[in-house]
Amino acid sequence: MTLEITDLRVSLGKRSYPITIAPGLLEDSALLQRSIVGEQVLIVTNETVAPIYLDRITAQLEGKQLGYVILPDGEKFKRLSTVQTIYDKLLQERHNRTTTLVALGGGVVGDMTGFAAATYQRGVSFVQIPTTLLAQVDSSVGGKTGVNHPLGKNMIGAFHQPVAVIIDTKTLDTLPQREFQAGLAEVIKYGLICDAEFFAWLETNIHLLMERDATALQYAIARSCENKAKIVEADERESGVRAILNFGHTFGHAIETATQYEAWLHGEAVGFGMIMALDLSCRLGYLSTQDCARAEALIKLANLPLSPPAGLPSTQGMIDLLGLDKKVMNGQLRLIMLRSLGDAFVTADFDMNCLEQTLNACLARTT
Amino acid sequence: MTLEITDLRVSLGKRSYPITIAPGLLEDSALLQRSIVGEQVLIVTNETVAPIYLDRITAQLEGKQLGYVILPDGEKFKRLSTVQTIYDKLLQERHNRTTTLVALGGGVVGDMTGFAAATYQRGVSFVQIPTTLLAQVDSSVGGKTGVNHPLGKNMIGAFHQPVAVIIDTKTLDTLPQREFQAGLAEVIKYGLICDAEFFAWLETNIHLLMERDATALQYAIARSCENKAKIVEADERESGVRAILNFGHTFGHAIETATQYEAWLHGEAVGFGMIMALDLSCRLGYLSTQDCARAEALIKLANLPLSPPAGLPSTQGMIDLLGLDKKVMNGQLRLIMLRSLGDAFVTADFDMNCLEQTLNACLARTT
Repeated sequence: MTLEITDLRVSLGKRSYPITIAPGLLEDSALLQRSIVGEQVLIVTNETVAPIYLDRITAQLEGKQLGYVILPDGEKFKRLSTVQTIYDKLLQERHNRTTTLVALGGGVVGDMTGFAAATYQRGVSFVQIPTTLLAQVDSSVGGKTGVNHPLGKNMIGAFHQPVAVIIDTKTLDTLPQREFQAGLAEVIKYGLICDAEFFAWLETNIHLLMERDATALQYAIARSCENKAKIVEADERESGVRAILNFGHTFGHAIETATQYEAWLHGEAVGFGMIMALDLSCRLGYLSTQDCARAEALIKLANLPLSPPAGLPSTQGMIDLLGLDKKVMNGQLRLIMLRSLGDAFVTADFDMNCLEQTLNACLARTT
Repeated sequence: MTLEITDLRVSLGKRSYPITIAPGLLEDSALLQRSIVGEQVLIVTNETVAPIYLDRITAQLEGKQLGYVILPDGEKFKRLSTVQTIYDKLLQERHNRTTTLVALGGGVVGDMTGFAAATYQRGVSFVQIPTTLLAQVDSSVGGKTGVNHPLGKNMIGAFHQPVAVIIDTKTLDTLPQREFQAGLAEVIKYGLICDAEFFAWLETNIHLLMERDATALQYAIARSCENKAKIVEADERESGVRAILNFGHTFGHAIETATQYEAWLHGEAVGFGMIMALDLSCRLGYLSTQDCARAEALIKLANLPLSPPAGLPSTQGMIDLLGLDKKVMNGQLRLIMLRSLGDAFVTADFDMNCLEQTLNACLARTT
């Protein structure tokens, strides 16, 4: 079976770029060549992805001045000292402002490569080739780049859009099951925050996704990217609506920071963060218990964790961590809540007692 | 004698900002308060400037959540690990996206504070309070921020405009003579690249500047900032004309990199870099020897070095270092040359033999 190529576009004036989605795109050398204007290319990947895909990419870039950096794999390496190794390579191999960086890997590789591209010589081009579901549906689109700080997730970064996103859905064939499920958390997120129709589709088709059915996957990835593109186009630098993409993330980031990125994958933390955000949306009277139950049921079908990891602090400790969130304005925490399935909003106006109740309840969960 | 306040503006749409110039502005708390919108402020300064001006600034920001970081002084500390200490402080004191960083010091403090502001939580506001002549006439205006890499000057950075530039010319009273002269190199640069009238004024009034005459100083600083603002407005991200602001800098950066930022101040390296650029402009037949001699005479009157520092590599070694310049495009070095006093242009079309002759001649200079 051959699937048609899905062509999307993120429209941001001069910073617009295409998203191309299909199985087998990594064999399409014309596509990759078209995305790279200059003569110099640095591929950034990690030790897990490199043995599988690096040769395939380098083979398609003959004639360019080509280098690569292989980073260690994992969220805990998403830090400034790792980005430094990208700068070192760029300078050792004398890359100039016309170079293109290629991010070949998951969200961690994409975020760090994007940040290196944003800051090398005050900004060079980069191409996203995401190889995890999470990166394909979320982090490769929208230009958020950056690294973690020991005191907080994604605290150091820049907005820097890629010049192209190339999504070969066939790369998901080699993705470990746990990573795949983590990516589904972000897919489900789009249904919850802005796309009720997609939520309903997911309820019906989640089993096909879990089996990695190629047609269902391409549809879900494309629909996720479309939703993301629409929101990013409306608010590129997150002065308003873009914040809803952070549904579940405020809680998720607190979990990741508390466990030093070692307990869970990012998508797992987002999944459980959504459970917490749903619980609070209910307690605050915004969301019906029926909708909350439907959402939680879908998260469960994606096999995401429904109870917290070991090593979390107390409710008060979690509240302290939430206070580090980038959405805090003049000391006031802002949360993304749901009014109904497919309708999220940002609010700083919530009862602190309800937040404590949500944390108490969710931290005590055992299944 | 009271001097009038000079009010300038850098017009960049949403990113526009005022430049205010006068002696005694650090006493003007209304001005500083007006520039800071949020409730949180982090002052970044260095160990030389802090004892003189830090108290004065903090006294004017009562009622804000106020912190400060004191960095070591010197270009060799302009590196990522120093910026890390700014991030650490911002997170320890829980600064959020509505915070304002204040850069109180010279170009090194301004560049690093600006880079921290560009990248903390993907971008926060910052105010420039430059206390050296070089920072007042050049680096505090225009939004170039960044740090050095062992393999090259300013190789890691971002474009990020300040929200205000406050220039208290009285801070120059405490500036060491060598630093003051280094700043004059950038003042002279504006005359050379785009303002023949100002060049002539400098020839007549350089002795007043060397005596730090308040009226002459304010005029020279304002005229420099006006020239810089005009060029930045025309080409914010240096895709064209802005490159002429780099006159003398390609050579200067090579000197700084070769000597690991320890031999000379940045302005001194730019001064001698301009000597080299003038020499090459002559050899290539663009500039008359008379104009070259006038320019060199002015640089000499500013007491800037006319012979190279110890520790430079050979001509070939210098050419290798020039190849690291950010203006290199697809392997081709581009240089800023003068056609006449007040008329600079960018070219990649020059005789390599002439460049070698210039390097041979200038590296051999003894006075």
